[in-house]
Amino acid sequence: MYKVYGDIQSGNCYKIKMLMQFLGIAHEWVHVNILASETHTEDFKRMNPNTRIPVLELGEGEYLWESNAILNFLADGTSWLPQEPLQRARVLQWQFFEQYSHEPYIATARYINKYLGLPKEREAEYHGKQAGGHKALAVMEQQLLRSKFLVGDTPTIADISLFAYTQVAHEGGFDLSRYTALLRWLDAIRALPDYLDMNA
Amino acid sequence: MYKVYGDIQSGNCYKIKMLMQFLGIAHEWVHVNILASETHTEDFKRMNPNTRIPVLELGEGEYLWESNAILNFLADGTSWLPQEPLQRARVLQWQFFEQYSHEPYIATARYINKYLGLPKEREAEYHGKQAGGHKALAVMEQQLLRSKFLVGDTPTIADISLFAYTQVAHEGGFDLSRYTALLRWLDAIRALPDYLDMNA
Repeated sequence: MYKVYGDIQSGNCYKIKMLMQFLGIAHEWVHVNILASETHTEDFKRMNPNTRIPVLELGEGEYLWESNAILNFLADGTSWLPQEPLQRARVLQWQFFEQYSHEPYIATARYINKYLGLPKEREAEYHGKQAGGHKALAVMEQQLLRSKFLVGDTPTIADISLFAYTQVAHEGGFDLSRYTALLRWLDAIRALPDYLDMNA
Repeated sequence: MYKVYGDIQSGNCYKIKMLMQFLGIAHEWVHVNILASETHTEDFKRMNPNTRIPVLELGEGEYLWESNAILNFLADGTSWLPQEPLQRARVLQWQFFEQYSHEPYIATARYINKYLGLPKEREAEYHGKQAGGHKALAVMEQQLLRSKFLVGDTPTIADISLFAYTQVAHEGGFDLSRYTALLRWLDAIRALPDYLDMNA
């Protein structure tokens, strides 16, 4: 049975829990507290030397890290990851976009605001994240005006990757009301069978 | 025939050129000058609304962006991308690591130093990139002490992704001399048949 090391309130970990719920994958969840530096112990570094969650334990001391790599591994062969090469590459396009152009703005602003309580010394950084976050949301909006989900008309792991932090973007100070297609997309994901709420 | 929009001196673009050379893929290369804001024209935004290079034109107004997604698309079915699911996921693990934990430190420090000439107002940011960059290099070193390439004993697109900016890390102020396995790996890649030098 898979073991997942993570914190469900971290969007990167929630992605894995969400896909496992959609696919009915049995697993054990081991809570890791990043604020208590639990990713920096010697035991943790043997699993992931990059000291980040989530980590998937595959058994026999074998580990896979990076949330989007784990999603690709678990979704392979299911409807959540198309087999057609270009569609598959488009899923990756959106996942790399998420890690480089979305997460560093939206998730980081949320972290500074929600977890650190917007301390004075990080206020400038927090405000500096707003333009980049809105740019990413506008790129998503443009695609979601053209297709129901990010890669065509059925949901893929690209949607899971971008849903995770977009749904809590308001906790980073992002007002989503101008993004009508994106709001419709958030609702479409929430309406999927076996959808798991982050706060459930 | 594929068309690639990019700048060979950008590591993200060089990755594509390098793989195309290894695989002998015929293509047209269209130079894009990011310092002249050529990624912000209306024509460019129709190709990639995220205003970044590289972009792969597949024909008929169809485009794929994000360097690592393009690598996965082009390498599919070749020895550069394993078919075995876990190996394939490990390639992605290293590619997502590259975009989140390596590129923002090493490539950005290089950009500030080489392209902007280390202006006074970005000196603090430049120095702030050093710790994160060395952390990423140490994570790679640990893997390269165990295997010849990042995912086993044959080269994959994970190696191309991480080679691109690691080989020019010194231009961002990173001294690589302490990473002996990593230096051996850089040489192993340079020795591959059809290897393309960034400055060739």
